[in-house]
Amino acid sequence: MDYDSIDTAIPTLGEAKTDSPIKAKGSRVRGQVFVSDEERVLIDSDLSRLEKRIREGMPIPSFEKAGPREKTYFDPSKLKCALVTCGGLCPGLNDIIRAMVLELHYGYGVENILGIRYGILGFLPEYSYQEKVLNPKVVSGIHEMGGSFLGTSRGPKTGEVIEKVVDYLDRTNIGILFMIGGDGTLRAASLLADEIMTRGLRISVVSVPKTIDNDIHLVSRSFGFHTAVELATTAIRGAHNEAQGHPNGIGLIRLMGRDAGFIAATATLALQDVNFTLIPEVAFDLAPPNGLLGALEDRLKERGHAVIVVAEGVKENIPECKKKDKDVGLFLKGEIVSHFKGKDIEINLKYIDPSYMIRSLSANASDNVFCSFLGRDAVHAGMAGKTRLLISQWNEELVHVPMSASVSRTKQVDPNGKLWFGVLEATGQGALKNDRQFVVPPSGGATQPKGGTANF
Amino acid sequence: MDYDSIDTAIPTLGEAKTDSPIKAKGSRVRGQVFVSDEERVLIDSDLSRLEKRIREGMPIPSFEKAGPREKTYFDPSKLKCALVTCGGLCPGLNDIIRAMVLELHYGYGVENILGIRYGILGFLPEYSYQEKVLNPKVVSGIHEMGGSFLGTSRGPKTGEVIEKVVDYLDRTNIGILFMIGGDGTLRAASLLADEIMTRGLRISVVSVPKTIDNDIHLVSRSFGFHTAVELATTAIRGAHNEAQGHPNGIGLIRLMGRDAGFIAATATLALQDVNFTLIPEVAFDLAPPNGLLGALEDRLKERGHAVIVVAEGVKENIPECKKKDKDVGLFLKGEIVSHFKGKDIEINLKYIDPSYMIRSLSANASDNVFCSFLGRDAVHAGMAGKTRLLISQWNEELVHVPMSASVSRTKQVDPNGKLWFGVLEATGQGALKNDRQFVVPPSGGATQPKGGTANF
Amino acid sequence: MDYDSIDTAIPTLGEAKTDSPIKAKGSRVRGQVFVSDEERVLIDSDLSRLEKRIREGMPIPSFEKAGPREKTYFDPSKLKCALVTCGGLCPGLNDIIRAMVLELHYGYGVENILGIRYGILGFLPEYSYQEKVLNPKVVSGIHEMGGSFLGTSRGPKTGEVIEKVVDYLDRTNIGILFMIGGDGTLRAASLLADEIMTRGLRISVVSVPKTIDNDIHLVSRSFGFHTAVELATTAIRGAHNEAQGHPNGIGLIRLMGRDAGFIAATATLALQDVNFTLIPEVAFDLAPPNGLLGALEDRLKERGHAVIVVAEGVKENIPECKKKDKDVGLFLKGEIVSHFKGKDIEINLKYIDPSYMIRSLSANASDNVFCSFLGRDAVHAGMAGKTRLLISQWNEELVHVPMSASVSRTKQVDPNGKLWFGVLEATGQGALKNDRQFVVPPSGGATQPKGGTANF
Amino acid sequence: MDYDSIDTAIPTLGEAKTDSPIKAKGSRVRGQVFVSDEERVLIDSDLSRLEKRIREGMPIPSFEKAGPREKTYFDPSKLKCALVTCGGLCPGLNDIIRAMVLELHYGYGVENILGIRYGILGFLPEYSYQEKVLNPKVVSGIHEMGGSFLGTSRGPKTGEVIEKVVDYLDRTNIGILFMIGGDGTLRAASLLADEIMTRGLRISVVSVPKTIDNDIHLVSRSFGFHTAVELATTAIRGAHNEAQGHPNGIGLIRLMGRDAGFIAATATLALQDVNFTLIPEVAFDLAPPNGLLGALEDRLKERGHAVIVVAEGVKENIPECKKKDKDVGLFLKGEIVSHFKGKDIEINLKYIDPSYMIRSLSANASDNVFCSFLGRDAVHAGMAGKTRLLISQWNEELVHVPMSASVSRTKQVDPNGKLWFGVLEATGQGALKNDRQFVVPPSGGATQPKGGTANF
Repeated sequence: MDYDSIDTAIPTLGEAKTDSPIKAKGSRVRGQVFVSDEERVLIDSDLSRLEKRIREGMPIPSFEKAGPREKTYFDPSKLKCALVTCGGLCPGLNDIIRAMVLELHYGYGVENILGIRYGILGFLPEYSYQEKVLNPKVVSGIHEMGGSFLGTSRGPKTGEVIEKVVDYLDRTNIGILFMIGGDGTLRAASLLADEIMTRGLRISVVSVPKTIDNDIHLVSRSFGFHTAVELATTAIRGAHNEAQGHPNGIGLIRLMGRDAGFIAATATLALQDVNFTLIPEVAFDLAPPNGLLGALEDRLKERGHAVIVVAEGVKENIPECKKKDKDVGLFLKGEIVSHFKGKDIEINLKYIDPSYMIRSLSANASDNVFCSFLGRDAVHAGMAGKTRLLISQWNEELVHVPMSASVSRTKQVDPNGKLWFGVLEATGQGALKNDRQFVVPPSGGATQPKGGTANF
Repeated sequence: MDYDSIDTAIPTLGEAKTDSPIKAKGSRVRGQVFVSDEERVLIDSDLSRLEKRIREGMPIPSFEKAGPREKTYFDPSKLKCALVTCGGLCPGLNDIIRAMVLELHYGYGVENILGIRYGILGFLPEYSYQEKVLNPKVVSGIHEMGGSFLGTSRGPKTGEVIEKVVDYLDRTNIGILFMIGGDGTLRAASLLADEIMTRGLRISVVSVPKTIDNDIHLVSRSFGFHTAVELATTAIRGAHNEAQGHPNGIGLIRLMGRDAGFIAATATLALQDVNFTLIPEVAFDLAPPNGLLGALEDRLKERGHAVIVVAEGVKENIPECKKKDKDVGLFLKGEIVSHFKGKDIEINLKYIDPSYMIRSLSANASDNVFCSFLGRDAVHAGMAGKTRLLISQWNEELVHVPMSASVSRTKQVDPNGKLWFGVLEATGQGALKNDRQFVVPPSGGATQPKGGTANF
Repeated sequence: MDYDSIDTAIPTLGEAKTDSPIKAKGSRVRGQVFVSDEERVLIDSDLSRLEKRIREGMPIPSFEKAGPREKTYFDPSKLKCALVTCGGLCPGLNDIIRAMVLELHYGYGVENILGIRYGILGFLPEYSYQEKVLNPKVVSGIHEMGGSFLGTSRGPKTGEVIEKVVDYLDRTNIGILFMIGGDGTLRAASLLADEIMTRGLRISVVSVPKTIDNDIHLVSRSFGFHTAVELATTAIRGAHNEAQGHPNGIGLIRLMGRDAGFIAATATLALQDVNFTLIPEVAFDLAPPNGLLGALEDRLKERGHAVIVVAEGVKENIPECKKKDKDVGLFLKGEIVSHFKGKDIEINLKYIDPSYMIRSLSANASDNVFCSFLGRDAVHAGMAGKTRLLISQWNEELVHVPMSASVSRTKQVDPNGKLWFGVLEATGQGALKNDRQFVVPPSGGATQPKGGTANF
Repeated sequence: MDYDSIDTAIPTLGEAKTDSPIKAKGSRVRGQVFVSDEERVLIDSDLSRLEKRIREGMPIPSFEKAGPREKTYFDPSKLKCALVTCGGLCPGLNDIIRAMVLELHYGYGVENILGIRYGILGFLPEYSYQEKVLNPKVVSGIHEMGGSFLGTSRGPKTGEVIEKVVDYLDRTNIGILFMIGGDGTLRAASLLADEIMTRGLRISVVSVPKTIDNDIHLVSRSFGFHTAVELATTAIRGAHNEAQGHPNGIGLIRLMGRDAGFIAATATLALQDVNFTLIPEVAFDLAPPNGLLGALEDRLKERGHAVIVVAEGVKENIPECKKKDKDVGLFLKGEIVSHFKGKDIEINLKYIDPSYMIRSLSANASDNVFCSFLGRDAVHAGMAGKTRLLISQWNEELVHVPMSASVSRTKQVDPNGKLWFGVLEATGQGALKNDRQFVVPPSGGATQPKGGTANF
């Protein structure tokens, strides 16, 4: 992966000059906890590439480490912050909201915290009056609930809306805007930051990247992903029981993953009861003899049942499904049913789509903890006057990644990597191509995950 | 309810003359545990109806109590038994299989136990060679798994098949056939018993009634129902979070319940986050102003979100859905979407169908225990030479119900009863009829649950 | 069991003359839902005992059916109610609080509802100022939490306190006092009602009986019990894994059950991995050869591991443990360790006491639903002016039981009944007595459960 | 941290010359999946330390990357492997056993796989006859169970035993010994490898490090830790409910953590309901005014309840507890009770020790997946003839760490790091010292975790 071209400098609103309130809490917090901007984490942990860089005198790419700074840019007593969650639901949203509010309140003494309703929409007059005043009491217990305490939406991102949002921020005197959202939100956040700069405002925009699919570039692990895989295994367990429980039983599960098959591949490894895992990153044929329908027929003949997991983005790999704009799970169901009907073989297919049961439930302990770190570090970055950044886990550290570096690129399963190799071993599915060659669809600049896995 | 016409006599193969092996286990089991055929449980626990019966000199209806008998009909050392599970999956199937095998083996010393694969199909030559030899070791741990250890199917019940099944039973020398299945299975079991009698064979047919919908006549509680309601609440929790998490969010959950809405109604009471519960037993209008679409629109205006639960059998109440033979959940989704599109109101509808994730998972502790009693009592009944009966919970006792009494009648939610009253209070939905009158569809001889509830 | 001597008449404060507000809600609720005081549920469902009663001209014992009455005694607009939870924690307390508040508010329009803190203590000046004003908003979501939203305590019940409580009720003008608590609470409630009567006050006292042990006389099933058994199985699963995972591994689990072993016995049936279940109702020897220590040694020799479940009340059966006033789990642990040390046999004993993890967690769906019925029916009873009663499940109906009938008697596992027979079969433990005779400790007037089981 | 002195060279038995069988599976696996020994992962991801190393011409420390090698040392058709699990139970043991067996069987075609019973003990004649023959069928489904399928023990590690183990390995012709165990097991493994070398045998010893406490040096994350934290939160939730539910309620939870407080600290962050977290790494006073007992008294006065989490190793910080060799949870319970008794303040303390319920349960999905990678990479390393190594996650890659580098050093919570800072913020506990100064006990060469956190 080409890490050399990444611009890792984090923009700031200006110099942070004020002593952090955290410092004053002598009895509660130890002084050494502050992180200096000079502490940087290597991006590339590969030794030979590093040696090449050293030989060639190239710079060594690194990210700024996240954490509380000794000096803050904002005066907490006058600061007003806004929080907004954008895009689809994802386990952990409420954990992050809570962590931000607790850190702003107890860590920095910030008392004006607004929760914007329903994503970007919530800045517009139709919804902005519904905003919630946030404080520790209000957010107490919200981490036990799924969904978003603030509400969310897949909002409009057109220029006109951007202006209205900045109007709102300006008018209501917001100093830091915390945006929890996916790639679209990062793009909107960049546009917002442009407009803020154009107007000469002093507003920091800090993001915690959200993608249940775990597919954001330069983000090793996104919150909610562990929980999603855990819940997906319940669906696979059910599908496996349905398949085993009937003659020629087929359990077909559609999982999330528009651009990347991390949930499908990782959940496959958790239970190892899946026989065919289909992800956007690896093309396959449907037609016999070696395509999915042929391999499925062989499997039924040999073992009498089969479990298939398909990620939603596989649609792009099936021209007919893409053309008809059909849900890939239902499309596959139809293809399988008509294939076996054509051969007069009776099958028992059970179709499970657990998507909304996964997105909407509360985070597990692993994501609870992870979100508490993400939320706090977002607050630390904002208080220090940093902007246009997102909080990311990288090489087992939390770091600051400039939005510009991450936006508009997708992280995908590496078809030559550890994760997919594990899936091939667990399923024994081989190349589902009539020429028996693995084919990888054009990736459009996708990047691979650290360590070849989904960072489990 | 008319209990007076029920014939509660349990047919037998002949006199039970042999001392039960349970009796000999002096050191392990206490003698008083045996139940005599004279112990009977009142069917009707209503005092005034009882007093009327006494006044009028009518007989008092009662069921034979289940449990181990002092004498057995079969000689355990020579007995061969067969177990079969029929119809759709239901949590607890494996618990019952295990309980039967443990009781046959340890309680009675029966060593020949066959597990038939895939329901009635499994008696036919295509599948019968796959039969499993069952013993305590083989069934150890199966209660932790969902599905059916033996496999199941919605099998053929035509006369020809009945003959083949009896051929199999006769040829393989089966003494007791344990059938775990629903109303269709009870009908098949009755036909089998007829054919057995015609041929003069000595084969007992004992059933444990299975219906995840909890809708079998003269059965207070069917196994798997508690588990199903528990799992359904997870879907409702998710739908509620999705609804609350978006502007004009609607969570629509389709639950099981072909003839009876017990799962939908009971799960509604568990969480109390549902706004509209639709069950087959209560008709409603779709059209505004008071039908579902109007009431939903009002709810969105007032509260901004809504959760709807619909039981699959509601299809029969919607002529258009019935005519098109569409899944009622998807039909409603379409109707709601087009209603609001027609009014140019943007909504966020999320559709959840958890059916196969509910049917296929393992039983909770409550059903584990319940199934262990059902399985053991089925064995005791069979060993005593009783036949054509099912094991049922009634008035908090386990009893023997003749198949003839229960078959072909459905138990339904009482629209005037405690359960539906609770749902109306929890949802506040009122009569979703344009004339504001509750209308109950013709029931075709349905019966109501004991105590007016689903026996929680 | 002697049901004939039970006085089942429910005291009232006076005639209920006002039309129930529920009646007016024509569009929301169907009229037929009202229950008349003439509807009564037979207590004894045994046919032969009934026939004997008829022959001898004896009265037939029955309970008044619970549910909404057509007329109320109290005027909802002026009524003030108080709720209090007493004794130890139990899953479902919050469900009942919520159900009561929702029914009082939405069903009857009662607007003054007070939550008393920390049980009976909360009426005393030290705590009474902390009382909570309850309404639907305040109780929204509390059913997802364990514990008691109001707090609880094992309070003082002396005469002086009783007077202070009635002072409080009188002074604050409470019309109905809802008490959720165990046998001690029922006794206190009776004393309160006496004092109320003495003073000529018009205050109704209605109880929902709480006992995680499921041991209250004339109550088939107490709320929280299903949840407790479910959570107990997790402890057993862990103990089983620990036992199997080590040479001579012993898993020892102490479960709740001061007077009755229902949790221990029922959880044993759920998993069937237990080898010795010890309950207060059945005496046993410790000493070899046939006592627990001998049988345990035999089991280790044969199978290499063992799982033991002991109910806390077993302490009363072990003179040495009783004398030393030791926790029976820790006592047994000591006895086992020293027995094997004396024989120079190395064992691996793991001790698990999950009590507080069981009591404090939230109710499962089965108890959620059950509690919603209990809470609502308590409100209906109170509104009708009934007093000195508790809401009980009996013969699958909810009924009114006079406190006087239930108080001070304990329901216990029947050593000759279905539940204990199931335990003996599941464990194979036999009579753990050196004379190989089962011995039942003196019961002090204990009663047996309906159907011989714990009503699973 | 001083990474420079680490010797990262992995010993081998000899040159790997044979083509890996994985290579031949053209249709199933892609060729590029092989990892070369030249692929190395930087140990230290800190930029400034790296720059210093470059400036000073020092070598850059790195680990060999784990994964399948193109050439194997062993001939699979003749190879015999042994698996053993040592020490206490930990979630995920069965997942690793299964992953190893599946990879050996399907990946390499190894057919002789032995499972040794009960840890090191299992090599001795008393137990070795109980060894299990392992294959895919035998290990199917074991990942759904907790505990160890093979059994485990805290075995003897004396020289004599080491010789007997090597006798066994030699006599039974084992080629690779897979040891899953903690620090003690790593020490035993080193001794075994010494003895193997002394005898000139060709036996590889490969370890997957096990520590539920997550405290092994040079191992970012140990399997079972995520699961342990998840289960610990249930205990905290219960304790919190108990504390809130009573006047002056105190919930005291003892968690695992002999040398390191990762479970206690991380679980504290998951729920954030804890008020005092005590770990071995940070000393505290018991005595008032600022020690635990004083701070607890203050908390009760202000808030009426408190939750305390204590890691078992805290015992070492309390001289009196250490001297009496008491369980620190029970010791603290005693101290708290007598403190408040002395002040005549009534408290309600509930004590929860969930240790064995955590250790013995099955792994969650996150650990399922992690274990599947660990097990497979251990097999790849062994097949390549590598020895004296453990499989570790580091910088989000799986790597080979020489046993010699990791053994006998403990990883601990950094009292100046992100995790402990988070705990101080979540609890607000401050320095529980009468001089209000944080004191860190002597660490004896402990190392800190990557990223300052427990790698959540």
